[in-house]
Amino acid sequence: MNIEDLLKQKSEWLRGIGPDSDIVVSSRIRLARNLRGYPFTHWGGDDEKAEIIEKIVTVCEKISRLKGALFLRINEISKVDRQFLVERHLMSREFGAEPEHKMLIISSDEVMSVMVNEEDHLRIQTMKSGFDLKNAWNIIDAFDEALAKELDFAYHDEFGYLTACPTNVGTGMRASVMLHLPSLVLTKQIDKILQAIAKLSLTTRGLYGEGTEASGNFFQISNQVTLGRSESELIEHISGMIGQVIEHERNARNALLEKNEARLKDRVWRAFGILKSSRIITSSETIDLLSSVRLGCDLNILPGMNTELLNELFIITQPAHLQKLEGKKLTPEERDLKRAQIIRERLNI
Amino acid sequence: MNIEDLLKQKSEWLRGIGPDSDIVVSSRIRLARNLRGYPFTHWGGDDEKAEIIEKIVTVCEKISRLKGALFLRINEISKVDRQFLVERHLMSREFGAEPEHKMLIISSDEVMSVMVNEEDHLRIQTMKSGFDLKNAWNIIDAFDEALAKELDFAYHDEFGYLTACPTNVGTGMRASVMLHLPSLVLTKQIDKILQAIAKLSLTTRGLYGEGTEASGNFFQISNQVTLGRSESELIEHISGMIGQVIEHERNARNALLEKNEARLKDRVWRAFGILKSSRIITSSETIDLLSSVRLGCDLNILPGMNTELLNELFIITQPAHLQKLEGKKLTPEERDLKRAQIIRERLNI
Repeated sequence: MNIEDLLKQKSEWLRGIGPDSDIVVSSRIRLARNLRGYPFTHWGGDDEKAEIIEKIVTVCEKISRLKGALFLRINEISKVDRQFLVERHLMSREFGAEPEHKMLIISSDEVMSVMVNEEDHLRIQTMKSGFDLKNAWNIIDAFDEALAKELDFAYHDEFGYLTACPTNVGTGMRASVMLHLPSLVLTKQIDKILQAIAKLSLTTRGLYGEGTEASGNFFQISNQVTLGRSESELIEHISGMIGQVIEHERNARNALLEKNEARLKDRVWRAFGILKSSRIITSSETIDLLSSVRLGCDLNILPGMNTELLNELFIITQPAHLQKLEGKKLTPEERDLKRAQIIRERLNI
Repeated sequence: MNIEDLLKQKSEWLRGIGPDSDIVVSSRIRLARNLRGYPFTHWGGDDEKAEIIEKIVTVCEKISRLKGALFLRINEISKVDRQFLVERHLMSREFGAEPEHKMLIISSDEVMSVMVNEEDHLRIQTMKSGFDLKNAWNIIDAFDEALAKELDFAYHDEFGYLTACPTNVGTGMRASVMLHLPSLVLTKQIDKILQAIAKLSLTTRGLYGEGTEASGNFFQISNQVTLGRSESELIEHISGMIGQVIEHERNARNALLEKNEARLKDRVWRAFGILKSSRIITSSETIDLLSSVRLGCDLNILPGMNTELLNELFIITQPAHLQKLEGKKLTPEERDLKRAQIIRERLNI
């Protein structure tokens, strides 16, 4: 397997299936782990980092969940490839920004990925489509156990897993759910809801995690607390809260359909019409229009449209994906043309 | 023939044919005439106005050009019907606003219309599609001669035809051409051109004549001077000037195609996409989008699109037309829905 193979396949989390997939795009869990006896990545020397990579790769190669996985040394791949992996949510922006002594391991179905020498020695992530934190937890927990058999993790009996940043100490777990909340935005209830969530120790972020703005009405909600509770308790807590957000969004959708059906349909159909017609389109306009079309799809306003295709468009219309699809570097202007072309090709079916 | 028949037919001037029909929608000539021995309309008594109507109707009924024509007493038709006739450019707004003692005569092909007791006793108009003032002149001149055989027009050997407003004295003729100048607007040359035109004794107006704003990049150019030159000289003068405007617009279109083809195509296709998709659309947005689609049609960007259909959409999406098509009064909100529906039905073919 190589990077080009990723381009040809659809990540599992883009399939638009799973519980509440009309509102929840994907569920993600990541664990932060460090090897005992080594300094945290930022303090480690080159030799130590190289040793850590070697140790982890050796173990991972033996784990059956990673059969056929892709092992990538980040300093050996191009800038476009790094951006491509960020766009696919397989690694963090920061991880690609300083590529030396960094290794990324991706399972062949893209459900699992492992960053070696990120802020922590290991950042393990699982992504599933729909609202499915429990399944994601089962997968990552089994994987974590398999690793723990071969690797000696830095663990403190009182504090739990030790991590580079104190906010991750304890379980080292962050559970995030990507929600599509267009109706809460349209009915101006979103701020109130996000404020309530913040009080319950949950944080909200944009499409690409920490420091990114919410765009296209997508919101990533995750736990802030990692200490003092078990993983299952944390997952139960966040799942309960998110269940309520989902209910609010569903109520708002019904209210819009009841009170303002024509205007809602107009918004959906116009977005669809522009996407099917435009010859030049920016990334940000694309996300906004796809958000409206997705809402239309979820409310059966657009017959024959499917979430998987829309999710795919969200991903492949991003700058690095476009350049990989075209097989060469593209200026921003060329990307706006190519983006419009690809969207037309996929939607005019 | 009755008003409902008009709704079913397409006016000749909407056919999108004739010289330079990629830029010129229609050519129109109107003549102002008054009967000798009667005060001008604004000063005339009810009996005098009634007498004038009777005289003119008697004559018109005998003229072969008006065989099968529609004779309408404006005070006997509904407000919506009056607005409908204004939207079809068959009578002036002012004519409908004070409906007493007013008669409108419309030839069955809508090429000729006669307003009785407008500002002048007679306002005769001919409209032809494309840039065709000479043909329009031949038609109206023959009609005027036929009328003059039976009616005694107020005429002064030195000044020519006498009219209620001094600006019409002389020939009593106004020749207007409706031009679609989107590229001169896009390239910001339009103001310079309109200023040049104003210096040459021509005036520019919007879609509905005096006092209306230019919308949808449509400009009506007509002569200001009616005195001291023959009709043919006036027509030759305005035709020469308009020929130059057409050339400027054509150059601007070529320049846009050369320098900015993708952006131009994007504008055209988006407009087309929105028109084919929207569920709610205002009259003003419709005109703007149809203008872009018309440009795309004229530049062969939109294959299979035809000017006649677009011209028809310009007309039938207006408030009174929508209400007549629906067969009942519609609120502005209902019209926005109906307008979107009709546009979709006609464009999704």
